Amino acid sequence: MAKETFSVGEQSVIFPRDVYVASSASVVGKKEGEGPLGEAFDMICDDDKFGEDTWEQAESALQKEALALAMGKAGMKPKDVRYLFAGDLLGQNIATSFGLMDYEIPLFGLYGACSTAGESLSLASMCVGAGYAKTVAALTSSHFASAEKQFRYPLEYANQRPVSATWTVTGSGAFLLSCKRSSVRITGITTGKIVDMGIKDSMNMGAAMAPAAADVIKQNLEDFGRRPSDYDKIVTGDLGYVGQEILIDLLKKEKIDISGVHEDCGILIFDKETQGTGSGGSGCGCSAATLSAHYLPRLTDGGCRRILFVPTGALLSTVSFNEGQNVPGIAHAVVIEHMDEEAE
Amino acid sequence: MAKETFSVGEQSVIFPRDVYVASSASVVGKKEGEGPLGEAFDMICDDDKFGEDTWEQAESALQKEALALAMGKAGMKPKDVRYLFAGDLLGQNIATSFGLMDYEIPLFGLYGACSTAGESLSLASMCVGAGYAKTVAALTSSHFASAEKQFRYPLEYANQRPVSATWTVTGSGAFLLSCKRSSVRITGITTGKIVDMGIKDSMNMGAAMAPAAADVIKQNLEDFGRRPSDYDKIVTGDLGYVGQEILIDLLKKEKIDISGVHEDCGILIFDKETQGTGSGGSGCGCSAATLSAHYLPRLTDGGCRRILFVPTGALLSTVSFNEGQNVPGIAHAVVIEHMDEEAE
Repeated sequence: MAKETFSVGEQSVIFPRDVYVASSASVVGKKEGEGPLGEAFDMICDDDKFGEDTWEQAESALQKEALALAMGKAGMKPKDVRYLFAGDLLGQNIATSFGLMDYEIPLFGLYGACSTAGESLSLASMCVGAGYAKTVAALTSSHFASAEKQFRYPLEYANQRPVSATWTVTGSGAFLLSCKRSSVRITGITTGKIVDMGIKDSMNMGAAMAPAAADVIKQNLEDFGRRPSDYDKIVTGDLGYVGQEILIDLLKKEKIDISGVHEDCGILIFDKETQGTGSGGSGCGCSAATLSAHYLPRLTDGGCRRILFVPTGALLSTVSFNEGQNVPGIAHAVVIEHMDEEAE
Repeated sequence: MAKETFSVGEQSVIFPRDVYVASSASVVGKKEGEGPLGEAFDMICDDDKFGEDTWEQAESALQKEALALAMGKAGMKPKDVRYLFAGDLLGQNIATSFGLMDYEIPLFGLYGACSTAGESLSLASMCVGAGYAKTVAALTSSHFASAEKQFRYPLEYANQRPVSATWTVTGSGAFLLSCKRSSVRITGITTGKIVDMGIKDSMNMGAAMAPAAADVIKQNLEDFGRRPSDYDKIVTGDLGYVGQEILIDLLKKEKIDISGVHEDCGILIFDKETQGTGSGGSGCGCSAATLSAHYLPRLTDGGCRRILFVPTGALLSTVSFNEGQNVPGIAHAVVIEHMDEEAE
């Protein structure tokens, strides 16, 4: 019976055995393909319905395709993947259920709003790191049209959007995590608490999520005894321009300056000037697709040595919103590092 | 670096270190309190709104109260619980988010429809069993009124219900899992796949879920090399009378006879003759509250030596249903055993 424990500080965990990223893949829609990261995505689909009849089925197709691509890159088949850790933004996770059903892989369904990309990587790492599985997959998705229909207004309504509003990314990112050595390793996680600062505006998700991001970043630095500069990048999921400013300010009040290393997937994925995307991109697919397409290549070639990946989620539904509840936030942090060939 | 792996067969896992149930608690509504298990629940609230303004807030109160009671029984405070693994049936898990926020404990939000009670116990066991935490909590809830509003019709509509329909349980069950020795131990889990048999009737959840239950029970027996009689009870979550018959038939076709040991929480929790509950109880709270109130006391005193607990979920939303999608099922199995005082 093992006695050693792998908890670190208050909210963090390291793993009994090494956890590597075996492969990843990103699938996005047309608008994302036209954005600054366009070249980097594995698949861009000109038809935002992905050949399906409904927006929800289109989102399912995103997840299905992303997982197929990630398995293809790793030379794996569904039977090589022991468990799936997956989720999306839709009520009752239907994009995930209907997208991944055909693979016949045991599924842990997850919901952490747009933080689910971090939650899925966290639980998948814990699973491989404990020796429960050799290879598992973590994946998430979002779709602009299914999210607008779910959370705001159907597209046909053509409502106006305030500048603080983010633009839900049509995209999915899938990650195969494995105990087999590769050049990118997940070395730790910090799991976030729900933080409620009383925000009530569902068109200002950045403000709702920034306090949760600040909380989990601070905790990660404390738990691992690090400074912001120990990370090449601290990468939040989808705070956008509005949320980024709040995050940096909140941490400055705690005497933590991340302004030199902070980046946000929602800011990277769209061109604010030409794409009309308001405060930036958002959604479960935003951080996942950006991690796969933009950051993992840099972590693989060593251009980036260590990042803190912090997907951020706003916990609301139309029901909670219409009943006057606040929009609390949650964020989960994952430490991802480049591994040199020679190092052990 | 550890080398041993803890995967068992195709879909199961055992744990590097022992995982015990430190305490549990159940909170239910008036109707459940009037049912056959009434005496056994820790708290029965005569007001189904639990003093709150909305049905969703009432469901949040269920989770909050159940966790408070479980912590109280174990003499623990929120700071003693490292992570929460929790979920519910509502869109975007709002009962969980708003119910557990005030505890300020890091949260993994889960969604597996009514199988979430099994999913949460599985992931919580994996966490403690790997040495990531000393104590964590697994909890789920459902509420008749919030579920009817979410999935079927608002109560005010007073729709007719077919006999195959189940009655969503107003209840929550919370479980503290710990590495500290107690008389009940979780010794393994088997994680289920999504199984779609083409059921389209959202008023016949039992039929939708039975194939998934059959699949994971068969896999559990195979993975651990057991026969049905190696379990004192094989306990499904909420198949009801309709689903029970289908489950037993499906397994008989596989030459597995569980008829002598099968019980269903949905059948146990209500009196079919006097309570007008159709095929039986259902919901995330049904299996969780019944495990806590009915089975755990028997596992504690040794009246029951080993059970297979198999919460069952139907994966649908009103959107997927209205768009003509099937209602696939999923189920997750958890092996729970009595531990003798003297044994090691």
